[in-house]
Amino acid sequence: MTNQPVILVTNDDGITAPGIRALIDAVKDFGKVIVVAPDKPQSAQGHAMTLNLPLRLRKVNIFGDIEAYECSGTPVDCVKLAKDVVLENRAADLCVSGVNHGSNASINIIYSGTVSAAMEASLEGINSIGFSLLDFAYNADFEPCKKYIRHLVRYVLDHGLQKTKLLNVNIPKLPESEIKGIKICRQANGKWVEEFVRAKDPHGRDYYWLTGEFTNPDQGTDTDIWALENGYVSVVPSQHDLTAYDALEELRGADLTY
Amino acid sequence: MTNQPVILVTNDDGITAPGIRALIDAVKDFGKVIVVAPDKPQSAQGHAMTLNLPLRLRKVNIFGDIEAYECSGTPVDCVKLAKDVVLENRAADLCVSGVNHGSNASINIIYSGTVSAAMEASLEGINSIGFSLLDFAYNADFEPCKKYIRHLVRYVLDHGLQKTKLLNVNIPKLPESEIKGIKICRQANGKWVEEFVRAKDPHGRDYYWLTGEFTNPDQGTDTDIWALENGYVSVVPSQHDLTAYDALEELRGADLTY
Repeated sequence: MTNQPVILVTNDDGITAPGIRALIDAVKDFGKVIVVAPDKPQSAQGHAMTLNLPLRLRKVNIFGDIEAYECSGTPVDCVKLAKDVVLENRAADLCVSGVNHGSNASINIIYSGTVSAAMEASLEGINSIGFSLLDFAYNADFEPCKKYIRHLVRYVLDHGLQKTKLLNVNIPKLPESEIKGIKICRQANGKWVEEFVRAKDPHGRDYYWLTGEFTNPDQGTDTDIWALENGYVSVVPSQHDLTAYDALEELRGADLTY
Repeated sequence: MTNQPVILVTNDDGITAPGIRALIDAVKDFGKVIVVAPDKPQSAQGHAMTLNLPLRLRKVNIFGDIEAYECSGTPVDCVKLAKDVVLENRAADLCVSGVNHGSNASINIIYSGTVSAAMEASLEGINSIGFSLLDFAYNADFEPCKKYIRHLVRYVLDHGLQKTKLLNVNIPKLPESEIKGIKICRQANGKWVEEFVRAKDPHGRDYYWLTGEFTNPDQGTDTDIWALENGYVSVVPSQHDLTAYDALEELRGADLTY
């Protein structure tokens, strides 16, 4: 083989989703692309992984000459299998996940299989980017994404990421001519307001089905939601350290340490 | 009803796990306890939630006079259903999750259904605590945990949590007399080194099964892993904002914003 970078591609919408095809198309000229993605949709799987069941991994031929595998597990499982089995513990130079059909901005990051897959790769020290388009439609137009995907991948391959290895990138649903550029942002402090639809199944038993609406009380102009609402691609450097550092002193002063 | 606090109890090991019974026993004198927990084990589900399937919720009578429901979904689903359906949008005063059979210290927090359930409640502004015992055994001894659970629950009910609404609490596998107290910690920067066992199923097809070993290169004495290895209960104030703030300047200076 050559010295070209190895780029691991995964997603959470499943290996047949149009979004991953667009992502492969955007990055394939930058190096050797290897795809390991779920064999079915795995949206909202967060950082779930499979401990109590065996996993399947099958080589598939659906992206021309691109080496690709479908996996029976979650997005995080895909990254673990890619590293251990497909790459035989060689580290990829970059992991890109997506392009997700739908937003992973703000609080969506914690539910997102797309970003969790990228985070899993970042734990291995691999520069990783989750890409999402703010369009849930199966036939969403991913063309405007490609310019920004290429720009960010080029930057990361050339410069690396120093302080964190994970970027959460969201792209507004706009024609390319209306996207104003890229903003580096913090995660907006938004949340979902949920309501369960209650109904009866054909056997007369109650069921509940989750619905919800995203709300963002965060008025900051430095957030991913602000950027997206104002026509920018949002880039949030993200991390796996969940420590609330500013709460450490509060609790240390609280005489909790009995 | 009275003014006693409403305490929501959940877990990820399932409603029949001994750990949740121990947790209920520890907290039941502090208020009105309502249990909504998965009807089967849901370990390592992270922040997964169920969008594409209906959920079931069944009232069960397995904890004496404690109101309890089993749910067909993930730990996060349980918290959402508890809020919307069981509590009819009244906010609980406290959510406790666990006691998990096994550690959720360090990086385990991101895979943990136990802590993700507590985080989900914290998103609603509810003070929330995930409890875990460093013992995977079904017949683990949860008695030494109860003193610390009560101490922390008493503190949170009396004082609230100000800077963050989520605590990740891990308890060492030690007799009560050997536990030295409580340490307020940051999340250790450890990770899993994984290996997949490859084998053939009875039909001759390959499968892969995840195994792994936790490693902690983080030498800090202010981490949860250090506390646990030195006989302390670890308390990590935790948050859902994953922004890597110290990487914002690096990227803003990088001329990425074209």
